[in-house]
Amino acid sequence: MPRLTILSRDADAYADIIEQAALSGLELVGVHSDAAPTATLKRTEVLLADPDLAVPLLGEAPSLKWVQSTWAGVTPFVSHPRRGYKLTGIKDVFGKQMREYVIGYMLYYTRNVAGMQELQSKAKWSPPETGGLYGQTVAILGVGSIGREVARAAKAFDMYVIGVSQRNRDCRFVDEYISTDSLTRCAARFDFLVNLLPNTPHTENFIDEQLLAALPSHCVLINAGRGEVIKDQALINALSQGQIKAAVLDVFRCEPLSSESPLWAMPNVQITQHTAAISRPSDIAGIFIHNYTLYQSGSQLSYQVNFDKGY
Amino acid sequence: MPRLTILSRDADAYADIIEQAALSGLELVGVHSDAAPTATLKRTEVLLADPDLAVPLLGEAPSLKWVQSTWAGVTPFVSHPRRGYKLTGIKDVFGKQMREYVIGYMLYYTRNVAGMQELQSKAKWSPPETGGLYGQTVAILGVGSIGREVARAAKAFDMYVIGVSQRNRDCRFVDEYISTDSLTRCAARFDFLVNLLPNTPHTENFIDEQLLAALPSHCVLINAGRGEVIKDQALINALSQGQIKAAVLDVFRCEPLSSESPLWAMPNVQITQHTAAISRPSDIAGIFIHNYTLYQSGSQLSYQVNFDKGY
Repeated sequence: MPRLTILSRDADAYADIIEQAALSGLELVGVHSDAAPTATLKRTEVLLADPDLAVPLLGEAPSLKWVQSTWAGVTPFVSHPRRGYKLTGIKDVFGKQMREYVIGYMLYYTRNVAGMQELQSKAKWSPPETGGLYGQTVAILGVGSIGREVARAAKAFDMYVIGVSQRNRDCRFVDEYISTDSLTRCAARFDFLVNLLPNTPHTENFIDEQLLAALPSHCVLINAGRGEVIKDQALINALSQGQIKAAVLDVFRCEPLSSESPLWAMPNVQITQHTAAISRPSDIAGIFIHNYTLYQSGSQLSYQVNFDKGY
Repeated sequence: MPRLTILSRDADAYADIIEQAALSGLELVGVHSDAAPTATLKRTEVLLADPDLAVPLLGEAPSLKWVQSTWAGVTPFVSHPRRGYKLTGIKDVFGKQMREYVIGYMLYYTRNVAGMQELQSKAKWSPPETGGLYGQTVAILGVGSIGREVARAAKAFDMYVIGVSQRNRDCRFVDEYISTDSLTRCAARFDFLVNLLPNTPHTENFIDEQLLAALPSHCVLINAGRGEVIKDQALINALSQGQIKAAVLDVFRCEPLSSESPLWAMPNVQITQHTAAISRPSDIAGIFIHNYTLYQSGSQLSYQVNFDKGY
């Protein structure tokens, strides 16, 4: 009988959902929100865990056969030397949230929501300009499983989608692929630039002075990948000088973003506090439950991570 | 050689686009933004016109064979006794705009944009709750060609779509149809209620005290159909008492909305000044140009109105 330990800031919520599901043969041996006792970990075969909480304890769980991560970012597990267990991530859940985040903020600017509210505050009927997403161009940096959902939603609004990718050029919702080398050369065509790239040595400071200067002044930049991808001072300069229209920023080099950061007070910045795509217990528990049925039948698990590839 | 008169508030913009298209065999005999001289109308075979400007002059255009309306609402033409010409409307353009309007404001509330901005104004990192559209239920009143596009976009975000319609139950983006009679009985399930109904004797004051009281308190009402469909005082009461979360209002019984209206100052109201779906000359001219090529070849025109049905 597989023994499960839950190790997550949302441990109680997960426990409720999983107990309700009454999974056959599963014994819940521990529910912990910061650390788990060694005795529990020793007996644990299955772990449902926040990566940062679980990784320091990997050495204390010799019977571990499967870890279901509650985050999409599984780098903490992959960076750790411990192997010999199945690691599964989270995928489709974040794509659904991310496409809503990106389309929502694109529509916020295109539909001139702030301008409407400004007029409303004056009780003045004087219909302002609004635009449409259809026919506009969005460039997406990073078209993996999450970027694919953003591309799909953009196509549902008849946008022209440019995918910026070196490899993986197989998304049917992308109208045109360009390489990272040609990004600055093509930037004048971008009505929206959406970054979904993770932080790697190749992507750090990727959005720099040159790229920002090449974007049209009506361009809105959305960063929901990693903060390190943008050169902070270059972005602040570009926004102050009106080189781009606005930036919607979900992620930052240092989180929480310092209250001293000038970004908070910039009128053309929206700060969304790393909420674009979050692990909601109801969504994640659903993936765990689905994977548990596969695990019991000895089938291939969904979203299993290849340790060598790192994703 | 067909003679065209343009009669529209955007006449100059239309003339520019149509002249650039250099349509073979078309002679542009008049470009007017309020009224056209009788001599011009007498010679006119084709009219591209705002309905309210054109209808009073229908009697002065004996050679008229085809009118392309610049509005979706062709009621002024249909209500007029003059017949014997082809009347074409506008369709797909408004669907594209309307789906962006509706999804944009649904995402505004679901993603808690105002809450994010409030936190940003305090320079405080404290990630708030956000929700997702996926799995939520939207009820759409009026699933014609425009409502169909809203339904399609809602499905692209994995929402559950309820169509409220007596006839025309053939939209494949609707998960479930209900009749207007059962609306109040089903209302507790609506996370969003979107009205796209035109103004007819059957729809006036359709959204009344009973329906509003039956909606859940987290429901957002979006009215982009006609103002007469909502009983104003019932809506103001429901919003003041928190019976529903918010209302996004594009249309009103009297437009422009009086500066005395209490709606302007209500914190849970967004007033968008009849901009949800507007006639943009570039879009409308494209439809005219397309239809002109069909007209010349004697083919069936797109979006032709049946005078007997009224649409």
